[in-house]
Amino acid sequence: MSTRVTVWNEFRHEQNKQHEASNVYPDGIHTVIAEALTAAGYDVGTATLDEPEHGLTQDVIDNTDVFVWWGHMAHQEVDDAIVEKVKERVLAGAGLIVLHSGHFSKIFKSLMGTTCNLKWREAGEKERLWVVNPAHPIVAGIGEYFELPQEEMYGEHFDIPQPDELILVSWFSGGEVFRSGATFSRGAGKIFYFRPGHETHPTYFDANVRTIIANAVKWAAPNDGPTVKFGNRNPIEAIAGYEPKEYGENY
Amino acid sequence: MSTRVTVWNEFRHEQNKQHEASNVYPDGIHTVIAEALTAAGYDVGTATLDEPEHGLTQDVIDNTDVFVWWGHMAHQEVDDAIVEKVKERVLAGAGLIVLHSGHFSKIFKSLMGTTCNLKWREAGEKERLWVVNPAHPIVAGIGEYFELPQEEMYGEHFDIPQPDELILVSWFSGGEVFRSGATFSRGAGKIFYFRPGHETHPTYFDANVRTIIANAVKWAAPNDGPTVKFGNRNPIEAIAGYEPKEYGENY
Amino acid sequence: MSTRVTVWNEFRHEQNKQHEASNVYPDGIHTVIAEALTAAGYDVGTATLDEPEHGLTQDVIDNTDVFVWWGHMAHQEVDDAIVEKVKERVLAGAGLIVLHSGHFSKIFKSLMGTTCNLKWREAGEKERLWVVNPAHPIVAGIGEYFELPQEEMYGEHFDIPQPDELILVSWFSGGEVFRSGATFSRGAGKIFYFRPGHETHPTYFDANVRTIIANAVKWAAPNDGPTVKFGNRNPIEAIAGYEPKEYGENY
Amino acid sequence: MSTRVTVWNEFRHEQNKQHEASNVYPDGIHTVIAEALTAAGYDVGTATLDEPEHGLTQDVIDNTDVFVWWGHMAHQEVDDAIVEKVKERVLAGAGLIVLHSGHFSKIFKSLMGTTCNLKWREAGEKERLWVVNPAHPIVAGIGEYFELPQEEMYGEHFDIPQPDELILVSWFSGGEVFRSGATFSRGAGKIFYFRPGHETHPTYFDANVRTIIANAVKWAAPNDGPTVKFGNRNPIEAIAGYEPKEYGENY
Repeated sequence: MSTRVTVWNEFRHEQNKQHEASNVYPDGIHTVIAEALTAAGYDVGTATLDEPEHGLTQDVIDNTDVFVWWGHMAHQEVDDAIVEKVKERVLAGAGLIVLHSGHFSKIFKSLMGTTCNLKWREAGEKERLWVVNPAHPIVAGIGEYFELPQEEMYGEHFDIPQPDELILVSWFSGGEVFRSGATFSRGAGKIFYFRPGHETHPTYFDANVRTIIANAVKWAAPNDGPTVKFGNRNPIEAIAGYEPKEYGENY
Repeated sequence: MSTRVTVWNEFRHEQNKQHEASNVYPDGIHTVIAEALTAAGYDVGTATLDEPEHGLTQDVIDNTDVFVWWGHMAHQEVDDAIVEKVKERVLAGAGLIVLHSGHFSKIFKSLMGTTCNLKWREAGEKERLWVVNPAHPIVAGIGEYFELPQEEMYGEHFDIPQPDELILVSWFSGGEVFRSGATFSRGAGKIFYFRPGHETHPTYFDANVRTIIANAVKWAAPNDGPTVKFGNRNPIEAIAGYEPKEYGENY
Repeated sequence: MSTRVTVWNEFRHEQNKQHEASNVYPDGIHTVIAEALTAAGYDVGTATLDEPEHGLTQDVIDNTDVFVWWGHMAHQEVDDAIVEKVKERVLAGAGLIVLHSGHFSKIFKSLMGTTCNLKWREAGEKERLWVVNPAHPIVAGIGEYFELPQEEMYGEHFDIPQPDELILVSWFSGGEVFRSGATFSRGAGKIFYFRPGHETHPTYFDANVRTIIANAVKWAAPNDGPTVKFGNRNPIEAIAGYEPKEYGENY
Repeated sequence: MSTRVTVWNEFRHEQNKQHEASNVYPDGIHTVIAEALTAAGYDVGTATLDEPEHGLTQDVIDNTDVFVWWGHMAHQEVDDAIVEKVKERVLAGAGLIVLHSGHFSKIFKSLMGTTCNLKWREAGEKERLWVVNPAHPIVAGIGEYFELPQEEMYGEHFDIPQPDELILVSWFSGGEVFRSGATFSRGAGKIFYFRPGHETHPTYFDANVRTIIANAVKWAAPNDGPTVKFGNRNPIEAIAGYEPKEYGENY
């Protein structure tokens, strides 16, 4: 069975006809990413903020293997209860690809435990992304670096925990650097933060960006890993004087 | 100036005269730990759940370099607003030593982003803690392993993010293992989780345990690190056509 | 195309009719592992110490995606020049699965940079391997722990660099623990150290052990990653007064 | 007792009156670094390639807590046996600070297990070093970034294992980035690689560079860590039918 992906997008900038994003992504960032992932062979759905339950019903959540998340101006409008449900699903094994301004989303901050703050600048400057971990499957098919001619700058310090794996580091014309591709595991779930994708630039049409997101979905898809039992447990080796108890499986 | 430590303790078990903890720690776990840290040369205060503001007034928080945290049955009674203030202080550079059942405290779970769940058993069994990172300052003065004759068991899987550094791994008579000493950094703060210390065993009188907690305080004490500026920033290198803006320091 | 695996085995113990290993693995450990990996769908060859060039001709090396390595008593007989060729191939992207006493092989020590020393005991005691990273593909299809009724003990401290990912931790009856499954990346190559497999126990017939080795081969197989250019490079952005030079691709 | 530092320098460029380095460091890079570390309160000695035994007699090695290492054109002239002795001392707990072109030294490559290759360019371009781990003691007293007006460029990919901790990332005018400050532990020893310091630029007179090297020495100094016993060991817990043996301490 194909990996089931749900591309979640705030979808506000693009619906504002005064906003430059509406020219670049008239049908929303999510449709462009979904098209790329469908072409890569995944089973892709989309969900957006203003749908009922933000498009993330329990059924959608339960049937998602990997979430892709783009948000920016309306992080605070995402319902805490829905964030909690997505978090539970990720901790239980689903993947999560957090894009660009999703660094400040509730779901990412909650999984990281830090402020996820950073420097930023909208100057349409050049970004050059360097691979620092060529062994990683997320950069299969990529050169040793690639460029985006115009992007928003994000600069260090990026207040995240030390990544499990650092894969990409960006150089910006204005003088900053940024850890642009980084992995984390939380519970049984795998998380990839990927920097590029300001709403006014055609970044999600870029072939390298699409390859990396598609690779990341493959990497983050759940494995048939162990079912873990938590709570009070009887000993496996006998302990003198200890009387085993009766428990449910996850007491 | 000496490192300023605040030992926070829930202090409920020990005040219950029916509870075995009241015999082991009649004046509370915090007083025993505080005594050890004072002897190690630190400037130590204590705070407990049932004091006003849990003993964690803004003044106490602001004047703490390293927090030591023990809680168990009343994690839910700790006020969210106070947890948030401690978290802000840790992200700004204070150290945090989380002991034993503190794995389920609000402060630890919030900084980890995971459930922090685990297996457990109260059988008074033997725990043997093995050093797996002999280079680390937290195990200075410790042998290659040490034993606690009677402890509560905590077993894997322990649902934490991959530690920055794994220092100790426990062996239990009943057949389990556990990552018993692990470091994490979050923001500018350094965190050490240290497993031992069930309330009914005299673990905090153990010389090795005391040495490790004292070492951890030294390791976790704030450094005079960089002041980071977040938010919208002008370029450092000139960008053609970009007009620098006026900002406050942390716009 | 199927991943091409070369299972390398010292193959000395098993050919000694006085040695217990000859009963357990009459045709060599390599044939048993090769049979498991062939059943898992890989394209598997074998090579042994006493073949010409240890069975590792340049052609075999060049056509290997993942090496599996078992050695013990004759590490010193492995030719340095051949070790160097395998190392070059791993740094260029091939995977390497190091089994059990391979911890002391020249190839592993050279890639780790440490002594790779450890404690050991042949007492046929019980080993219980706990999963500490349930998100990892190497433990797909495994329970939260599994047991080997009789194994040689390996105990901490295991003198390896901090693993990129720690996946399994062993508990032994005699009182020790061990980091039994750990990953490292070196150059473009991925390395997995997996502890079990003493030559006198039927460990490589165990279903869990076979699943883990097969998973590890999949995880370690080369990706189509970036071709990295090293050496003297012209600037990508113009530098005033700097005259670009002519280079070969990897000057 | 003060930490004992040995600053090792190849000291060839500076003695060549035709070479620009002889103007910048007429008495050698080592004397400038030694002066900075002496001012920081350490007990500092120096050693250079062309002294007998490269200045690294067994007595010097045994009485060094932290080595600082600068080499470039003559890595191959460093005697393998002396490298091996330094390596043993590091694995036993001494610190090692590898500077700039020391990335290609025998001691660093042997401890890393990789080629340690990278891109480079001598264009006297600007380097800006960003702190990405503000919690780390190595950056105490440093701002969120600092600049070196003229330096040799080193660019990614830098073929090192994933660092235990990444502390600094460099931006270069010519368009590259580099992981410029990174820690590793090997055995009981702590290693810090620090990028800056081309022989023709006055980098080791820079206050930030001196602060970082001094901090690194403090961080890398040996702790009184556990003495580890390797080899064949008796069980700690009784194993039925197993007869304990008599061993020396590190059999």
